[in-house]
Amino acid sequence: MTRVGIIGVGITAFGEFWEKGLRDLIVEAGMAAIQDAHLEGAKIDAGYVGSMSPGRFIGQEHIGALVADYVGLTGIPATRVEAACASGGLALRQAYLSIKAGENKVVVAGGVEKMTDVSVERAMVTLGGAGDQEWELFHGATFPGLYALMARRHMLEYGTTEEQMALVAVKNHRNGALNPKAQYQSEVTIEQVMKSSPVATPLKLLDCSPITDGAAVVILAEEKMARKYCEKPVWIDASAQASDTLALHDRKSLSRTDAAIAAGKRAYQQANLKPKDIDFAEVHDCFTIAEIMAIEALGFCPIGKGGKFTEEGNTARDGSIPVNTSGGLKAKGHPVGATGIAQAIEATLQLRGDAGKRQVKDAKVGLAHNVGGSGATCVVHILRRDA
Amino acid sequence: MTRVGIIGVGITAFGEFWEKGLRDLIVEAGMAAIQDAHLEGAKIDAGYVGSMSPGRFIGQEHIGALVADYVGLTGIPATRVEAACASGGLALRQAYLSIKAGENKVVVAGGVEKMTDVSVERAMVTLGGAGDQEWELFHGATFPGLYALMARRHMLEYGTTEEQMALVAVKNHRNGALNPKAQYQSEVTIEQVMKSSPVATPLKLLDCSPITDGAAVVILAEEKMARKYCEKPVWIDASAQASDTLALHDRKSLSRTDAAIAAGKRAYQQANLKPKDIDFAEVHDCFTIAEIMAIEALGFCPIGKGGKFTEEGNTARDGSIPVNTSGGLKAKGHPVGATGIAQAIEATLQLRGDAGKRQVKDAKVGLAHNVGGSGATCVVHILRRDA
Repeated sequence: MTRVGIIGVGITAFGEFWEKGLRDLIVEAGMAAIQDAHLEGAKIDAGYVGSMSPGRFIGQEHIGALVADYVGLTGIPATRVEAACASGGLALRQAYLSIKAGENKVVVAGGVEKMTDVSVERAMVTLGGAGDQEWELFHGATFPGLYALMARRHMLEYGTTEEQMALVAVKNHRNGALNPKAQYQSEVTIEQVMKSSPVATPLKLLDCSPITDGAAVVILAEEKMARKYCEKPVWIDASAQASDTLALHDRKSLSRTDAAIAAGKRAYQQANLKPKDIDFAEVHDCFTIAEIMAIEALGFCPIGKGGKFTEEGNTARDGSIPVNTSGGLKAKGHPVGATGIAQAIEATLQLRGDAGKRQVKDAKVGLAHNVGGSGATCVVHILRRDA
Repeated sequence: MTRVGIIGVGITAFGEFWEKGLRDLIVEAGMAAIQDAHLEGAKIDAGYVGSMSPGRFIGQEHIGALVADYVGLTGIPATRVEAACASGGLALRQAYLSIKAGENKVVVAGGVEKMTDVSVERAMVTLGGAGDQEWELFHGATFPGLYALMARRHMLEYGTTEEQMALVAVKNHRNGALNPKAQYQSEVTIEQVMKSSPVATPLKLLDCSPITDGAAVVILAEEKMARKYCEKPVWIDASAQASDTLALHDRKSLSRTDAAIAAGKRAYQQANLKPKDIDFAEVHDCFTIAEIMAIEALGFCPIGKGGKFTEEGNTARDGSIPVNTSGGLKAKGHPVGATGIAQAIEATLQLRGDAGKRQVKDAKVGLAHNVGGSGATCVVHILRRDA
């Protein structure tokens, strides 16, 4: 079966954009990706777009056809996929599978969310729809609340400290400060994180990713087309997905993300690699504790050791496994449907050697880990450049 | 590449169920499908679910993981796809593509919508999100309003009459009366349709499909597994999808559905068939005019002749091309995300010879046509039984 390559990427600045709508954002990212791929739009066979909740954020469903229409590709099969904050990663995966199926040769995969047109309260309730509405949100468990439960359990079982979590934010802001697309291009100190307002104890304001507007688009092609149109295609060597219970209380463990462990294992098998073979990773740090659980689930360190591993600097840009060089969801921002695609874009830029001041030296293999809800969906991609 | 077969089907009654939630509905349909397939759940590799707007109807997104969890398949890759009222058809298509890609052997594809927990006004606004929220709904164009514009144009250009549209409702209610799962199991007369309250002139209450709760699930398998588990697998010989502009005013014609024409053509090519080779069809009659435009787009009669073709009885159960033997969206009901799967189930029952009193004699090849919004998405499947 054919290999699938990323041949173009486009991303908007991430932030709070009162003057831009969902359509503006996805068109901006889409056009940038098409230009980056040096491709005429007419070569594109189909499109997938990830978006969590356009219905509740802007009153609009049926985003697949809308995006095809607005980027000038009216007529192509266009499909929205959704798995909360993993919607972007799943759009990438469906696009990849449609090429593997022999159905398409060139496919566009995008992600978009326009979150700031509603009140913060409304955004909070909308995001609560990523978890179990009946058993969690309805009873007052917001998303920071759910991750706070996981953080407490991790602290209790493994001795993880609030300072270790804070160090995730410090590192990711340090990276975000070098990313011109990031929502927060400023560093923070551990003192600032520790003294920031409590949101859901032990999580403080600077442990949490923000509410963000943004869009990101990649263009995929089967091997021949990829080599024809692109000097430096980046190959998708693995695409794996798993699920878990929607509600936290049904899980075997609160301090472990089983869907991520399963998706990671499948991805390593597909790519015939081990965690130590990965040169850098973009992981889903919607909260600082989420990054700690992610690096454990992906096997970069043993379960329970993520806090210590972070404290030792292993995940820094010059560490043994740089994590979230883009700034992560924490500093780059988290337009939920766009996040999975934005991760693939950071990996592509790193593998092409186009990551500017945040470039990881000699990066050959990168991993992207995208989570939906409190872990009920996880999708992992492994990307590789030609040797 | 492997053929893909439908090896099990399950569907709830369609109607207004105050005592059942979305979870109850999809579990009921899912369990029925698994039993029908004589399969242990552990054989299922992945799931896709179509749902238009669970966020706005019941406050819950992330339906893929939820469904996997509630039907006892926690862990499998589970993905929601959405294209308004074509969400079910697209879930079927993505499930099919994932088998074609060699990624999965057995996949469950479901559709569900729980629409009656909100007010009719709220449901109307939510459904408006299937069209162009900014350029249509915001200015007062509800869905009946959009289809009324298409009906007016069709009447003006081709002389289609209100009576011909009414005959679509009469026929579909006659079929629905024989379907024990249908929301309306009662016949209506042409006089009743013509005298029913105006909704958006020329469309009257009995020209419109209802608001419905319901769920439908099919199980797909690659050829070897299909033959192993199923005596009478029904093969998916074509799966095709196309898009059109989201807003009606951007279309080349108001009286024609170009996405359906394109998807139909591709489907006939894939199956190497012509319209005359189709023995029966389930088409997307969200309004009576929609069925008339559908049979034209699919080539069962020339463009503009759908009204006359219906009047002549060609689409009746004993006509040359029986259409909507299930009762269609009109009489069977239209839980939007479930509709595309329910169409595939009716086709499967007909091809197996299990359609009871509404059985079409010697049915060998059936077609399902599922539309999103006012036609911005169309997906067409052609199903066939072994000779």
